[in-house]
Amino acid sequence: MAGVCFRSVLVTGANRGIGLGFVRHLLALPNPPEWVFAQVKELQQLASKHPNLVIVPLEVTDPASIKAAAASVGERLKGSGLNLLINNAAVLKTNSLDTETLKDMSDVYTTNTIAPLLLGQAFLPLLKKAAQESPGSGMSCSKAAIINISSIGGSISSFAGWDVMEIVSYRCSKAALNMLTRCQSMGYREHGILCVAFHPGWVQTDMGSAAGHTPPLTVDASIGGMLKVLSNLSDKDSGSFLDWEGNVVAW
Amino acid sequence: MAGVCFRSVLVTGANRGIGLGFVRHLLALPNPPEWVFAQVKELQQLASKHPNLVIVPLEVTDPASIKAAAASVGERLKGSGLNLLINNAAVLKTNSLDTETLKDMSDVYTTNTIAPLLLGQAFLPLLKKAAQESPGSGMSCSKAAIINISSIGGSISSFAGWDVMEIVSYRCSKAALNMLTRCQSMGYREHGILCVAFHPGWVQTDMGSAAGHTPPLTVDASIGGMLKVLSNLSDKDSGSFLDWEGNVVAW
Repeated sequence: MAGVCFRSVLVTGANRGIGLGFVRHLLALPNPPEWVFAQVKELQQLASKHPNLVIVPLEVTDPASIKAAAASVGERLKGSGLNLLINNAAVLKTNSLDTETLKDMSDVYTTNTIAPLLLGQAFLPLLKKAAQESPGSGMSCSKAAIINISSIGGSISSFAGWDVMEIVSYRCSKAALNMLTRCQSMGYREHGILCVAFHPGWVQTDMGSAAGHTPPLTVDASIGGMLKVLSNLSDKDSGSFLDWEGNVVAW
Repeated sequence: MAGVCFRSVLVTGANRGIGLGFVRHLLALPNPPEWVFAQVKELQQLASKHPNLVIVPLEVTDPASIKAAAASVGERLKGSGLNLLINNAAVLKTNSLDTETLKDMSDVYTTNTIAPLLLGQAFLPLLKKAAQESPGSGMSCSKAAIINISSIGGSISSFAGWDVMEIVSYRCSKAALNMLTRCQSMGYREHGILCVAFHPGWVQTDMGSAAGHTPPLTVDASIGGMLKVLSNLSDKDSGSFLDWEGNVVAW
């Protein structure tokens, strides 16, 4: 990843698992970001060691909180833009097809799909600014990008893991997030903002272990892979669905 | 369509457009269903001419109303099952990527995606009964089926019509509905219930004309096509996404 610099990054859902992994890995890079914004108090200890880590209050299901976070991040950035928005916050309910409810379907969709839309809207001015102030014409993650952490569970054609977890609300929300990623890639292309959806692999997190199984992939391997893929993304990748190794995942 | 009989059918969103078209076409078949259930008062006049058309109060975003409708339909069927559940009710908000809101995203998802899930759950006992009481081992629409009226707008790979309408909330809800269709096809296969998603074409309805354009397809051509396709569906089609001419649509 020599030469690539993620200058300023916001990570949602960073209190554990993949989000926390992103924050740790970003801070440990040979050329770490100038600013890493993350939303949770649990990172206070990490922040005391890393002056470039800024804790931002953020409730992703609350439009007012999102707007306040964007204002706060903008203030800290003092006129420069945000390079990378990592929409990682997500919830999963271990329901079956028979036990899904209106409330769970709605709650999961709000966090997993609507929040990434609203975050994209709220941080658009900062992302545009980052794209404008970066040299070169092509899109890249060192310029401006939205990274939506999706899942193979949202792949309609793969339709993986039904025997392990039915999780209809989660699958539907991630299929919709993939669609949102395509919409964002189309709508934000003119602003020079690259947008991709990621399948992080089946990772050893609370969510990955929700059905009592042991996932094959460590958080470190997943994040390491994704950061490597991120650092090589260009125009042709915007609007695509990739796994942690850079393979295209079918919709 | 000789030989195929849709013995009992429920159509949601039948007050106009495609839903109303389904009701009219079903009643006009040479071998019409024994029962057509539809949800709206506007059909009262049609019902007075067709004793096999039953008006059922149904608010698809209200779980209690859905359960009451299932009980009422079950009562009318006097112990026999429901062959065909046509989840047609849908809403569209002509928002752009920039103007989508939490409320519109949530409302559109509730009607277009969550309601078909809840209707499938509530009518499952009647659909299972229809499958059990029908002869033969293969699945078909004269046995038991859930038909989810989706849209090419929900195809992530086609990504059609962005220049005409961005409608992010609608696209996301229909991609999620396609995922739901796969989930239902997997979960209900053991009960002998066939599940498909349909792209009805770009049809001359209020919704189809939402952006001020004139769609190429009449309601009659769309419904005629879909009924022909429906009458030929078998096991291999369950879980697929088809257009009104029977072509497979990419996810």
